[in-house]
Amino acid sequence: MTSIPFIDNPALRAALQARIDGKTKPLGALGRLEQLAVQLGCILGTETPQLQQPQLLVFAADHGLAAHGVSAYPSDVTWQMVENFLAGGAAVSVLARQHGLALTVVDAGVRHDFAPRAGLLQRKIGPGTADALAGPAMTAAQCQAALDAGREVVRSLPGNAVLLGEMGIGNTSAAALLMARLTGEDVAACTGRGTGLDDAGLARKRSVLQAVLARHAQAVEPLAALAAFGGFEIAMLCGAVLEAALQRRVVVVDGFIASSAVLVAARLQPAVLQRCVFAHCSNESGHAVMLRHLDAEPLLNLGLRLGEGSGAALAWPLLESACRVLAEMASFESAGVSRSS
Amino acid sequence: MTSIPFIDNPALRAALQARIDGKTKPLGALGRLEQLAVQLGCILGTETPQLQQPQLLVFAADHGLAAHGVSAYPSDVTWQMVENFLAGGAAVSVLARQHGLALTVVDAGVRHDFAPRAGLLQRKIGPGTADALAGPAMTAAQCQAALDAGREVVRSLPGNAVLLGEMGIGNTSAAALLMARLTGEDVAACTGRGTGLDDAGLARKRSVLQAVLARHAQAVEPLAALAAFGGFEIAMLCGAVLEAALQRRVVVVDGFIASSAVLVAARLQPAVLQRCVFAHCSNESGHAVMLRHLDAEPLLNLGLRLGEGSGAALAWPLLESACRVLAEMASFESAGVSRSS
Repeated sequence: MTSIPFIDNPALRAALQARIDGKTKPLGALGRLEQLAVQLGCILGTETPQLQQPQLLVFAADHGLAAHGVSAYPSDVTWQMVENFLAGGAAVSVLARQHGLALTVVDAGVRHDFAPRAGLLQRKIGPGTADALAGPAMTAAQCQAALDAGREVVRSLPGNAVLLGEMGIGNTSAAALLMARLTGEDVAACTGRGTGLDDAGLARKRSVLQAVLARHAQAVEPLAALAAFGGFEIAMLCGAVLEAALQRRVVVVDGFIASSAVLVAARLQPAVLQRCVFAHCSNESGHAVMLRHLDAEPLLNLGLRLGEGSGAALAWPLLESACRVLAEMASFESAGVSRSS
Repeated sequence: MTSIPFIDNPALRAALQARIDGKTKPLGALGRLEQLAVQLGCILGTETPQLQQPQLLVFAADHGLAAHGVSAYPSDVTWQMVENFLAGGAAVSVLARQHGLALTVVDAGVRHDFAPRAGLLQRKIGPGTADALAGPAMTAAQCQAALDAGREVVRSLPGNAVLLGEMGIGNTSAAALLMARLTGEDVAACTGRGTGLDDAGLARKRSVLQAVLARHAQAVEPLAALAAFGGFEIAMLCGAVLEAALQRRVVVVDGFIASSAVLVAARLQPAVLQRCVFAHCSNESGHAVMLRHLDAEPLLNLGLRLGEGSGAALAWPLLESACRVLAEMASFESAGVSRSS
C-alpha cells in the first residue's frame, strides 16, 4: 500500500499550542484535553479542527478457536449481538444515539446469514475463521481481502473521524495472540478473562493460546501473525485503521481488540499512531500493557470490558470538547483578563 | 438544619443491579458506568432515572489571603473571569453550551460591582473575605448567610441535578486549609500550585498556610473552620451541597475547591456523600488524598486543574450515558441473546 507519511508540521503544532496557551485559563490547566486538541489540529491540519460526520464502525466475525472453550459465551452470541446492534438495543447503539454517531455494522465473517438492511454492510470473508490450533485462522488471500474490505468501507463513508469497535466471540484470544507475538510479552500477560471466564476457564484459555503460539512459531511478520491468529474483524479493523490514517481521519480506538488491530497496523505503518486517539484503558488484562507498547495515553479508565466500540463512544464528547475549546474559548486579550504575575 | 437522611432502599438497589445485570453485556462489563447507574437510580428513587434541567452553578468570591501572594494571578482575575463566564468565553461556558447545562454564576463575594444581567445572581456577602492571617476570614454570621444563600440558590432553580464549580483567586489556599484542619493531613500534603505557582511561590504559600492554621488552632468544628479560612464561595457551595442533597438532587462535584465544600458539608451531614458524583481527580496536589478521605471514586482523571466546574461539565455525558443504558439497552430476553455458559 501507499506509505503513510508522518505528520510533521512544527509551525502548525506551535500555532495550536500558542492558541491554547492564550486561552483564559492557567497554562496547561485543561490537562489531557489540551494535548488532545493539539493532536486533533495536527491530524486535521488546522488550528480550528471540526469533527464532521463521525462514523462508528463495528466489525463482527466468528473465530474457529472458540470451539476450544476460550470464551464464556457461545459463538451464536456474535450474530445475536449483531441483530441487537441493528435493533438499537446494544450499549453501542445507545451510546451512538446519545452522541450522534452514525453506526455501521460490518459482517466481516459471522457464522450466520443476515437479511440485508440499513446499517449493515455485508463484507463476509467466510463463516468464521478456521481453528488456529489446527492451522492458520485464515489464508493469506483471506487476510488481504479483509484488509482491503476494511479500507473500502472507510472510503465509502463520509466524515473526518472513525470510531472503531468490534464483536466476535473468541476475539480476545486472537488479540492476545497478536499481542504476544508482536510485542514479545508472555502469553499470560496478554490473556484475560474476556467476557468473564472463571479461573479454570482462564487457565484453559492460556493453555490453548500457548499451544496456538507454538503451532505458528514462524508467523512473526505482522501480516503472517494476523493470518495465523485471525480474526476477520481484526484484519478488517486493521485495514480501516490504515485507510483512515492515510486519509488523515481521526481514528478513535476502543478497547483491547481494536487496539490489537492498531498494533498490527502500526507495525506496517508506524505513522498511523499519530492519527489514533485511544479512548480508554479497559479492564481486560493485557490492555494496559498493550497501550504502553503503543505509547498510548488513553482518555478514560472506567473499568470497561465490553468492546463494541462502547468505550470509543463514551470518550467521543471529550474530542468534541477539545475542538470547542480551541474554537470558542476567549483569549486573555479578547476577554480582558489579566495574565499571571 | 433538617437532618439529611441516608438513602437506604435495598429493594430498589437490588432491582437496579438486576436490571443492569440483565442487559445484553457480560456481567459488570460497563465497569464504573454500572455503579454510576445504580447510584443515580438510588438518588432519584427510580429504576429508570432521568436527569432533568441540570444546573451548573459557579460560585465566585475573593480572598483576603490573596494579598500574601498565595496565587500566581492577581485578585482582579476573579471578576474578570466572572465577566468571561457571562460573555460565554470561559472553558465552563463552552462546555456548558456543549452539554446543554444551564449556567448560573453567583457573586458570593467578589471584590467588584457587577452590572445586573441574565445568568448572574447577586448574593454578595462582602467584597472578599478578610485576611485569615489576621483573624477569621468571615464572621459566624457571614458564614451562616453564605450557607443560607447557597441553599436558597439551589431552591430557586429547577431540575434534579446540580453541577458545582467555583472561581476565586486564592481559593486553593482556603480549600487546603479546610482539608488540613478537617482531615488532619499535613499542610504540605494539602497545598498545591493552584493556578501555577513556581517552587518559590509554593514554598511561600505553604508557609503562609501553616501560619494561618496556627493562628486558628481553635477552629476545629466544620463551621468554625469554614469561617476561619473562608471563602464565601466555598461556604455558599457547602450550602448548595446541603440543599441539593436534602432535595435528593444529583450533585456533580468538580475539583479540589468544590470537593473541600463537600468535605465540610459531609462533616455536618454525612449522608450528602450518597448524592455526590465526583467528576474527576484534578492535578492539584492534595485532591487525590482529599478524594480518598471522602471515599470517592472520581469518573475522570485528565490532569485538569482549572476549576469553574469545567471537570464536572466534562464528566456530565457519562451520567447521561448511565441513565440511557438503564432505560434503553435491551435485555438478554428481549433481544434473544444467549447467556454465558
